[in-house]
Amino acid sequence: MTPLNIGLVGLGTVGRGVADILGRGAADIERRAGRPLRVHAALVRDAGRATAWRDERGHRFEILTDADALLDDPDIDIVCELAGGEEPALGWTRRALAGGKHVVTANKALIATHGESLFALAQEHGVSLRFEAAIAGGIPIVKALSEGLAGNRIEWLAGIINGTGNYILSEMTSHGREFADALGDAQALGYAEADPTFDVEGIDAAHKLAILASIAFGAPLEFDGVMTEGISAIERADVAFAAELGYRIKHLGVARRRAEGLELRVHPTLVPAGRLLASVDGVMNAVVVHGDAVGSTLYYGAGAGSGPTGSSVVADLIDIARGSELVPRSPISAPAADNAPLGALAPDDFRSPFYLRLEADDRPGVMAAVAGIFGASDISIEAILQKEPTAAGDGPLTVPIILLTREVRERILREAVVAIEALQAVRTPVVTIRVETLG
Amino acid sequence: MTPLNIGLVGLGTVGRGVADILGRGAADIERRAGRPLRVHAALVRDAGRATAWRDERGHRFEILTDADALLDDPDIDIVCELAGGEEPALGWTRRALAGGKHVVTANKALIATHGESLFALAQEHGVSLRFEAAIAGGIPIVKALSEGLAGNRIEWLAGIINGTGNYILSEMTSHGREFADALGDAQALGYAEADPTFDVEGIDAAHKLAILASIAFGAPLEFDGVMTEGISAIERADVAFAAELGYRIKHLGVARRRAEGLELRVHPTLVPAGRLLASVDGVMNAVVVHGDAVGSTLYYGAGAGSGPTGSSVVADLIDIARGSELVPRSPISAPAADNAPLGALAPDDFRSPFYLRLEADDRPGVMAAVAGIFGASDISIEAILQKEPTAAGDGPLTVPIILLTREVRERILREAVVAIEALQAVRTPVVTIRVETLG
Repeated sequence: MTPLNIGLVGLGTVGRGVADILGRGAADIERRAGRPLRVHAALVRDAGRATAWRDERGHRFEILTDADALLDDPDIDIVCELAGGEEPALGWTRRALAGGKHVVTANKALIATHGESLFALAQEHGVSLRFEAAIAGGIPIVKALSEGLAGNRIEWLAGIINGTGNYILSEMTSHGREFADALGDAQALGYAEADPTFDVEGIDAAHKLAILASIAFGAPLEFDGVMTEGISAIERADVAFAAELGYRIKHLGVARRRAEGLELRVHPTLVPAGRLLASVDGVMNAVVVHGDAVGSTLYYGAGAGSGPTGSSVVADLIDIARGSELVPRSPISAPAADNAPLGALAPDDFRSPFYLRLEADDRPGVMAAVAGIFGASDISIEAILQKEPTAAGDGPLTVPIILLTREVRERILREAVVAIEALQAVRTPVVTIRVETLG
Repeated sequence: MTPLNIGLVGLGTVGRGVADILGRGAADIERRAGRPLRVHAALVRDAGRATAWRDERGHRFEILTDADALLDDPDIDIVCELAGGEEPALGWTRRALAGGKHVVTANKALIATHGESLFALAQEHGVSLRFEAAIAGGIPIVKALSEGLAGNRIEWLAGIINGTGNYILSEMTSHGREFADALGDAQALGYAEADPTFDVEGIDAAHKLAILASIAFGAPLEFDGVMTEGISAIERADVAFAAELGYRIKHLGVARRRAEGLELRVHPTLVPAGRLLASVDGVMNAVVVHGDAVGSTLYYGAGAGSGPTGSSVVADLIDIARGSELVPRSPISAPAADNAPLGALAPDDFRSPFYLRLEADDRPGVMAAVAGIFGASDISIEAILQKEPTAAGDGPLTVPIILLTREVRERILREAVVAIEALQAVRTPVVTIRVETLG
């Protein structure tokens, strides 16, 4: 059968991974896809002296620096967009789709912010747009959500979808380190960028969560509707107190269906230590999906890297080859039939249990005052602990007080926190971290 | 669009689950499938007084007791075979396929023993045969293996694929109970049958493993090639010693590619406590799949029950609706292009580390004698522990000796065990349990 010709846009870590997998697995992949998949050309920014790639098995393809040469090549059936970022990736993707080429992308920012118009364009031109590699690296989570669980009404999902952040929190947990030290390690190991904002402040995770929620709930893609809180303010003390209470702190993306709309949020989270998600350490990713029929399911694997991300790109290529005469409907933004509200809720309306830590003067009555404020706000407390006094330099001796609440609406919780911070005995801002029981 | 009409063969736990999911999710499922999916009739053994099913939303379908009426109905497009067992399920499945009807089945025994001829029949008649629900209930593991990881050469997989056995071992681990007590509980809770052989002796898991291996490696379906060892001989003492060494005992199905062929085995296994698989408790299932590109991935969820199994059946139905004009090639028995040997190896040629426990007289020199036998066989020992003497009724005082070996060929290990059992000081047969590091 005639091969399906692939144009790689980008020949970095992922692009080389894709070329390697297609080369070494060529015969098996041809059998699974029903026809050969072949890299026809790759677009790079600077070709250096190389004008062609030749792999171990002798297969070669052209290296181009002119995007037009690749996008206008009538021999190319599928464009793999692996360049990342907004432009020129967006323009290239549009041109490829409009030119009748299928597109496989690993670009989460592109899908999270322009997914709807891109899927409309693909539909219009009768081609596929696929993005398994954009979320959680090698884990086939897009396929699981949109096909494997297609009989379910998804109630919620929660995932560790940024490996850098998870590495840092895992280091803080297992070695009692502070955030800055663990970040330094992550940078030294190449897990974190020199400017780590994108990862540690949750922007990358928010892109992925917006896409997952759109698939799971049929909600419009709403990157701006994701409440995003990073992990840079997490202190070693909170990691330790959480452990004492039977929890681990993970940076989760959470999407949850409520009667009034959707909670879309990325934030540090206390997770019960007994949950599988609490044991997902290092740079690994995992997503829990809860459906009405299936209950809770979990998907775990490497969230990044040449092989894992390449694995997902190649799975998409094979799917296109298997059914290239079919134009699948977009898995995103396909609203449910029940007209349930799918707008993103404001953080004030989120509900979850909370962990709180405050430093207060070590004198009688403080705990009673704090408990009184919660009582007056109708917030149920699951646990309250007063720890040993902290040596605090010049100031008066203070004690950490730790609280775990039951589920509470965030607006109510925030008002209680303002009242607590107004107490004379409370010396520092109250630390608040959300809890997810995943039950 | 014209609905796709479904004939349910069996209206027990799973059949009712399928009917419920299709009823309550009808509108969403129609959107995802591209056309309505409707139950047209159900075949039951004894209709009692009911001749029709009417669900909450008023959708009704006929209840039949005559298989011919269902199988010969030209209005039925897809037969869901949920009756289980060998005959008449096999004959019905053949008739449905030969009659040009797609078949979705939850029958692992049928696929494990007759899968190849059934897929050939489906191919011949241009229809689909799908079986996601046959393995690990609601976990979309067939889809993950055959599509999500289709770019990979699978190196090995290991899974907890029988919930009954896992419930029993979890109870033994968390409450220090003996096998018989935990089995009694499982029976009282409805997790185990009155005759629990099929589950606790690993036959059910062997069916599933044979299918998984055939998908993963393209190997012929070879149920008889699966070495199967149950959990009924596991003692509380071994659970406790394993814990002390940092392991948990799980009943695993393991399929591993070796240069000479495939290891296909179901047996109690020591798993390092830090692995996610070690934390999969109760009736839950999980499968780890290791591919050359993606590394290790894990899939977790409920392995049985109306909703989870129904979820997988409905996912297959939606897949057929989406691409019913395509006849997918069989995901099983599709040999790899590299001509690697895919025959099942004999247990003698399996390789793994081993845990051993023996009871020996409490006198000097016994450990040295045991260690000497291993040394002479070139078996590396990772740990050897001598525990406190056991009060042993009338006989002489004995001490338990626990050993952990490094990877060893089973034939060599068995020969060493024979030599150890021949030592005068060794009073009882040596307990041997395989170890999987899952690394």
